[in-house]
Amino acid sequence: MKELAYGLSIELDLPLGRAIAATKEALEAEGFGILTEIDVRKTLKEKIAADFQPYVILGACNPSLAFVALQDDIDTGLLLPCNVTVREEADGRSVVTVLDPNVMARVSPSAELKEVARLARQKLERVLDELSRQPVN
Amino acid sequence: MKELAYGLSIELDLPLGRAIAATKEALEAEGFGILTEIDVRKTLKEKIAADFQPYVILGACNPSLAFVALQDDIDTGLLLPCNVTVREEADGRSVVTVLDPNVMARVSPSAELKEVARLARQKLERVLDELSRQPVN
Repeated sequence: MKELAYGLSIELDLPLGRAIAATKEALEAEGFGILTEIDVRKTLKEKIAADFQPYVILGACNPSLAFVALQDDIDTGLLLPCNVTVREEADGRSVVTVLDPNVMARVSPSAELKEVARLARQKLERVLDELSRQPVN
Repeated sequence: MKELAYGLSIELDLPLGRAIAATKEALEAEGFGILTEIDVRKTLKEKIAADFQPYVILGACNPSLAFVALQDDIDTGLLLPCNVTVREEADGRSVVTVLDPNVMARVSPSAELKEVARLARQKLERVLDELSRQPVN
């Protein structure tokens, strides 16, 4: 697991499709539903005819944590869901990144959100731990 | 237009459905596609049987700006799309909020993202200006 400026990342010895499936499964096991899925490569091709690597953005949300945060600060929806990206590199391996919920909490004055973010980060760390135990190819 | 801790907001004298339609139209006029739409109320009801006010989160993305940002920092997908929320209050009026792209840029070390965020913020201010000119009811 690698710490990024505003998230965590892990490399998987899996092609994109299998990496996405494994990521969704690990997120769901920690109580995160996948509310959105953006195919970045397809979107850029369709909208501006640009070529880009295989790349998806998943919007993951733990509804119980989101509910606590929204009740404390109604504007918290601007920071939801928590993004997870999966991209395939040229060598056929995939990189999974998750946004650090603490980064989101830092921009908000809500004390409640800080606690929610701490819990969400623990869960996301377990997601990446679980993914790191994936059998390769 | 009101400045929030991490976004901008505006109140519209419209019920939720019409506020969402007007918001989408104004976003599209500034080059933002709506990539995702989360019905927060419905999601919370379905997942944890919680009652919440009418509230949607739209994922808005200007593909040209996103492409510049992603080429500079591949992890930028963690900060995309730019969230816009529309919620209906008890008095039947709606509140539209947009995430300040500068807030996203501050968490990233990418200089390119700061310029992209500056441009995106200008566009989003024009979106809210346009919405403030909506005919009421």
